[in-house]
Amino acid sequence: MDMNHGSGTLLSLFIVFVAAQISAEIAQRLKLPGVVGEIVAGCVVGPSVLGWVRPTEALDVLAQIGVVLLLFSVGLETRLDDMQRVGRRAFAVAVLGVIVPFALGSLWAHGSGYDWAKSLFVAAAFVATSAGITARVLQELGALKREESRVILGAAVIDDILAMLLLGIVTALQSGDELRLSHLALVLAEAVGFVVVIGFVGARVMRRASRLLDAPINPLSPLTIVLALCLGLAFASTQFGLAAIIGAFLAGMIASETRQRETLERQTQPLIALLAPFFFVMTGAQVELAQLASADALLALGVVTAIAIVSKLIGGGLGALGLGARGALIVGVGMIPRGEVGVVVASLGLAAGVFTPITYALIVAMSLLTSVVTPPVLAMLLRCAADAPSQNPKPPDHQ
Amino acid sequence: MDMNHGSGTLLSLFIVFVAAQISAEIAQRLKLPGVVGEIVAGCVVGPSVLGWVRPTEALDVLAQIGVVLLLFSVGLETRLDDMQRVGRRAFAVAVLGVIVPFALGSLWAHGSGYDWAKSLFVAAAFVATSAGITARVLQELGALKREESRVILGAAVIDDILAMLLLGIVTALQSGDELRLSHLALVLAEAVGFVVVIGFVGARVMRRASRLLDAPINPLSPLTIVLALCLGLAFASTQFGLAAIIGAFLAGMIASETRQRETLERQTQPLIALLAPFFFVMTGAQVELAQLASADALLALGVVTAIAIVSKLIGGGLGALGLGARGALIVGVGMIPRGEVGVVVASLGLAAGVFTPITYALIVAMSLLTSVVTPPVLAMLLRCAADAPSQNPKPPDHQ
Repeated sequence: MDMNHGSGTLLSLFIVFVAAQISAEIAQRLKLPGVVGEIVAGCVVGPSVLGWVRPTEALDVLAQIGVVLLLFSVGLETRLDDMQRVGRRAFAVAVLGVIVPFALGSLWAHGSGYDWAKSLFVAAAFVATSAGITARVLQELGALKREESRVILGAAVIDDILAMLLLGIVTALQSGDELRLSHLALVLAEAVGFVVVIGFVGARVMRRASRLLDAPINPLSPLTIVLALCLGLAFASTQFGLAAIIGAFLAGMIASETRQRETLERQTQPLIALLAPFFFVMTGAQVELAQLASADALLALGVVTAIAIVSKLIGGGLGALGLGARGALIVGVGMIPRGEVGVVVASLGLAAGVFTPITYALIVAMSLLTSVVTPPVLAMLLRCAADAPSQNPKPPDHQ
Repeated sequence: MDMNHGSGTLLSLFIVFVAAQISAEIAQRLKLPGVVGEIVAGCVVGPSVLGWVRPTEALDVLAQIGVVLLLFSVGLETRLDDMQRVGRRAFAVAVLGVIVPFALGSLWAHGSGYDWAKSLFVAAAFVATSAGITARVLQELGALKREESRVILGAAVIDDILAMLLLGIVTALQSGDELRLSHLALVLAEAVGFVVVIGFVGARVMRRASRLLDAPINPLSPLTIVLALCLGLAFASTQFGLAAIIGAFLAGMIASETRQRETLERQTQPLIALLAPFFFVMTGAQVELAQLASADALLALGVVTAIAIVSKLIGGGLGALGLGARGALIVGVGMIPRGEVGVVVASLGLAAGVFTPITYALIVAMSLLTSVVTPPVLAMLLRCAADAPSQNPKPPDHQ
């Protein structure tokens, strides 16, 4: 039967998936995290080099589901109690990890010729951490139970709330609207309320819901119910101005309170294996190498990336000094990737007429560069930390 | 961080997934196959009733991946040896199951006022069987090991080849082009060659490839490699004019020759649980109830659906008479659903200016109606057959 209308999509899916598997394997043979291979694979098969794959709505939705499920599975390996224990430290990491990049970013933007109002918008693109990339590296190395990992994950949630607020503020500044503190306070209260209510009430409900998960006839019902919860909370968190992955992470975290947790972890792995590569490959496919094909542009990219890296390292690291020098370094490095979040802010800035095209290209390239350079460094630090006597080492047992 | 550009899609995903779970549960409590619930859920949340979900590229691609993975998992439960054993019978079922509906369909179309050339095109929409729906029912009831199931699956593959040829013939007839038999022979040879080479050579290669599947570092590599194979063969089969699900089924069948088969079966279940509902819900969402809101239209639909059902029952059943009366009935019923395949032919006919809008609406409604009425009847027949002493009963152990 003629079904060729969908065959182009099937070919893209095949190329993306195979490129991801081959590159991840090569990266791992080179002792790099597999995710580096997947992002590089995206650069190669994407428009910049081979042009075999172009971003389409179909690939975008698979990428989004991939990262949502990834954060869900990371949440499944995270207990609320453990997160509470690192709460204050995660808060310090998030706050300092927002302030330092924001300050350095706005200085750079002002130095590049933007007025102060616009500089603050540009600086907002330096702020937000993309939890997906770090979470995948931590998961790959079986390091999610480490205290540093919990601090990073907790800080990523808080970071997202702060970044959303900041984006609201700098957007209001552009239009010259009066900054309504009462409105900002409401936005903050809603976002914090969402996270706290879902986290605490959700965990309490889930602890008692284990039997209900087995009630449906479908033998896979525990999985399908928590997947529905994951999609629902991912959507709900966007309604509170937060990233979809925050809701997915919370869904996983509260689902980990059920007694079906281990089955759920095992059943989620094939989903991640199929769908997460789409996220990382499509992240890499967004790099526009042509935009950066001049010495000036490369120099500027070097400066921007250095600011992005150093500022998060200082901000995040300072907040985590209590974990010792190595722990603070791991946390600081873990907060570096800007990933798709930086790209989103840059897109908003371009659409609002604030960013020049070259600033846009720089911020996008910086976001992706920070995502590629972080995983190898983080992996090296974690491997050293696992060899050395540490607080809670754990051999890698996850993919 | 503001990610609201994707939140509409997330909401659709959530609605489709939850509606599927709830309706499947209700259907199963009513002793109906879960898939009936999922198709009805699609009618309800789709444009015809609630209008909460509209077909989009994103949902379409998930539906397509869902049915591809479903047929892959059905293939995983199918051995080449068993298929060879039923080969002749499956061939008879496929050929008679094409001839009878094609003959009755063209008589009906001519009686409705179409000239003969156009009538043959309309009749082509009566021909093709949609394997997805029957396969899901057989899987749900754990009946894939029954001889009738193997005959149905084998016939579905051959049926798809014949239907593709037929569509080529009737399309050529419309333009008054000379029918080039050499071209048709080539198309047939290519399609048969694809299926035979992939089936036989693939199975032989896979039997020896078990160790290679474990070679990559990724512990889930057996799964990721066969998923890549599934996507690749699904695409390849569209290049030979066949449906993507034929390639996916072949990929599953040859993957079942590896020693990782049981692990693969288990790991595929969560993928089906997440993605297959999108196929069935989106199938239901395509029903346009408004088109059929007159007594005349309903009467015509009754006639068309009766022809579609009776012709497959006779054609398929005659081919399987050697299985005894009940076996022949099971096979005949199993070949009834037209599903998305009938919809595709109707769309082609509408685009080619051959179908009138009312014929289009009738064929689409018939395709979906045959998909909804078949599962309960098939389930009833299979349950009776399992109770009665039969050739190879097997208790339901799958979802």
